[in-house]
Amino acid sequence: MESYTYLLLLAIILASTKAFGLLTEKVHLPQVVGALLAGIIMGPSGFGVLQSTDFLVKTAEIGVIMLMFTAGIDTELEELKKTGARAFAIAVLGVIVPLALCGSLYFVFFLKELTFYNLLKAAFVGSVFSATSVGITVETLNEMGKLKTTTGTTLLSAALIDDILGIIVLSVLTGLSGGMASGGGEQAAAGSLDLGAVGFVLLRIVLFFVFVLVVGFVAKKFFEHLSEEHWHSRRIAVWALAFALIMSYCAEEFFGVADITGAYFAGLILCNVSRSRQFVAKKFTVASYMVFTPVFFASVGMKTNLTSMNSQIFVFALCLIVAAILSKIIGCGGAGKLVGMTNHQALIVGIGMVARSEVALMVAQKGINAGMIDPVILPAIVLSVIASALSTPILLKTAVHRGPELE
Amino acid sequence: MESYTYLLLLAIILASTKAFGLLTEKVHLPQVVGALLAGIIMGPSGFGVLQSTDFLVKTAEIGVIMLMFTAGIDTELEELKKTGARAFAIAVLGVIVPLALCGSLYFVFFLKELTFYNLLKAAFVGSVFSATSVGITVETLNEMGKLKTTTGTTLLSAALIDDILGIIVLSVLTGLSGGMASGGGEQAAAGSLDLGAVGFVLLRIVLFFVFVLVVGFVAKKFFEHLSEEHWHSRRIAVWALAFALIMSYCAEEFFGVADITGAYFAGLILCNVSRSRQFVAKKFTVASYMVFTPVFFASVGMKTNLTSMNSQIFVFALCLIVAAILSKIIGCGGAGKLVGMTNHQALIVGIGMVARSEVALMVAQKGINAGMIDPVILPAIVLSVIASALSTPILLKTAVHRGPELE
Repeated sequence: MESYTYLLLLAIILASTKAFGLLTEKVHLPQVVGALLAGIIMGPSGFGVLQSTDFLVKTAEIGVIMLMFTAGIDTELEELKKTGARAFAIAVLGVIVPLALCGSLYFVFFLKELTFYNLLKAAFVGSVFSATSVGITVETLNEMGKLKTTTGTTLLSAALIDDILGIIVLSVLTGLSGGMASGGGEQAAAGSLDLGAVGFVLLRIVLFFVFVLVVGFVAKKFFEHLSEEHWHSRRIAVWALAFALIMSYCAEEFFGVADITGAYFAGLILCNVSRSRQFVAKKFTVASYMVFTPVFFASVGMKTNLTSMNSQIFVFALCLIVAAILSKIIGCGGAGKLVGMTNHQALIVGIGMVARSEVALMVAQKGINAGMIDPVILPAIVLSVIASALSTPILLKTAVHRGPELE
Repeated sequence: MESYTYLLLLAIILASTKAFGLLTEKVHLPQVVGALLAGIIMGPSGFGVLQSTDFLVKTAEIGVIMLMFTAGIDTELEELKKTGARAFAIAVLGVIVPLALCGSLYFVFFLKELTFYNLLKAAFVGSVFSATSVGITVETLNEMGKLKTTTGTTLLSAALIDDILGIIVLSVLTGLSGGMASGGGEQAAAGSLDLGAVGFVLLRIVLFFVFVLVVGFVAKKFFEHLSEEHWHSRRIAVWALAFALIMSYCAEEFFGVADITGAYFAGLILCNVSRSRQFVAKKFTVASYMVFTPVFFASVGMKTNLTSMNSQIFVFALCLIVAAILSKIIGCGGAGKLVGMTNHQALIVGIGMVARSEVALMVAQKGINAGMIDPVILPAIVLSVIASALSTPILLKTAVHRGPELE
């Protein structure tokens, strides 16, 4: 007789993440915060009702794949094409500055010794804070009637490019860390750098992008053909999910880049099939919120052991919160200034990119799984993600109100 | 580093069950048949691409729970209330005759010795064929414009009651078999009957129904209150799923009845919350077909080892097909005659109840898990289920056309 505990665990996760999510929403915080809280409170560092199991780990991973696929398929390619160098510059600095600043902070606190391996670890922590979650900003600007301004649309485009750049950075980092792990951990830890191995990893990453182009071409044709007649039938959504899963698998197993990279590109490919796009995205969203993403958020919360925070990690967390917020304002705002925005516009763009959410959590999870991020700093990361998400609407409203009418 | 094979397995299951399902639909067979075929062909007895894993077993079980919940919430209680003794009589004989006939057949072929344990095993096999799947009949009659006749509506009501009766029979059988297993397998196998243990099992089943009434009352109030404002928001669907999972867990762990019984009653309770009913059913359906039910059908197919069929099982399968079809025609048709239908109407009602589908497969799976059904006869069961589903529309069309205008 098998045990049925997994049914109970799943029920508790679904009920509690939703309940806490609604509570945080009541006090104008994103539901994600509530879902994380549910995991923290019901998990091992709280009441201990929930514990991680193989089934939950796999369910959470599928949730991550669904989230990334949805991010990909929701990309507004038309917006992206219209976007000039401005948004691109903002996105680039918006990835580099947080990577450098948050990574350096981690280096200074925990690593200290300058080796290639340590740099890679620091970069992984930094890359967590590269990924913008523009949803909160969109909501806030929309509420204030400022979304359709030039600043608003530039911000949106920059966030889209930011996603793609972040994914590329993650691919390179995952590839390098996987390459170093297979190339011998001690050697890697000792910091010696095998240029051949690095070259091989970079080759695999390039091959992955070639793979994406080739498969993308074929898959786009297939789904376009399918959507001529069946754009609103179940088969297209089911096959899209199969496609997302296969791309995730191939990315991870054959190219050594993260599965979420594969899922994201699967979504990006299918966002070109305009007829079925919305239908597919909708079905993914339902399957996602009914089962999979609550498990992901709860599982991140469950891993977030707040009680294990010592004073060093606590101070690190405070500094990381400041770095996470400032790095986007400096990076994106600075780029905005460079491409000729006014101070006020540049500030809005910078603040608008501050919020991080699920993508940052996914990258952190990837880093932990790959052995590149020490789980002990997860509470600091989670707190910074939450703080960045919370401060965005407050800072944004203040900045918009204090300046001249936004264009 | 974890292995990502489960992503690939899931992708293959989703892609192949849909592809085969569409193929069988092209030749006017139900998609379920295709999904089963996909499991047989891709599974261990075919190409061996798929094999069962803990993750797939659990995902399939959640699929089963979703299917049973949906069956429950889709119950037309208004129809049921209007239905008189006629439909009830048809349902009762429609459960008893297949149970007796198919059970006896199994007894004669494989068990032979008359003990309580063997009777229980035979009854389990018989109960697989009690569960009607009226979907195919509804489609066929609708196509012919005969669904709204008196015969059609009686048939529908009988099928609804048939579901409930089937679930009660399953609960008793599961309870008894669980009670015997815990009361000492050898004693049970030796056939001696501990009346105390049986009494305890029956008491637990009664307690389960009391539990359903009490929890049902509270849950109905809660969901009714919730649906006043939020009948179309995510929370109601997510909490409904949590409720279905908890009911399944409690049924299995505390009362020793099958988890699908709990899921079915969870659905039946929420079918009383008319405001949110459709919304909830729709979200369950999407989550179901996107991931969970394909895994269930494929996993039944994977367990169906056609190559292991020896001549005895082959002959048994042929007899079982005949018994499965005839038992419903005799049981339901006979009951129809008894309550005053014409020969033609009674025949239509009998044929209309012949089709079996997912519920039968779920009961078979339960029986195998409980050690009450020998997996070696699964091919015979699957073939009979498929044959009954295939023959229903053919027999039904012939019968309707050959007789007088249906009332």
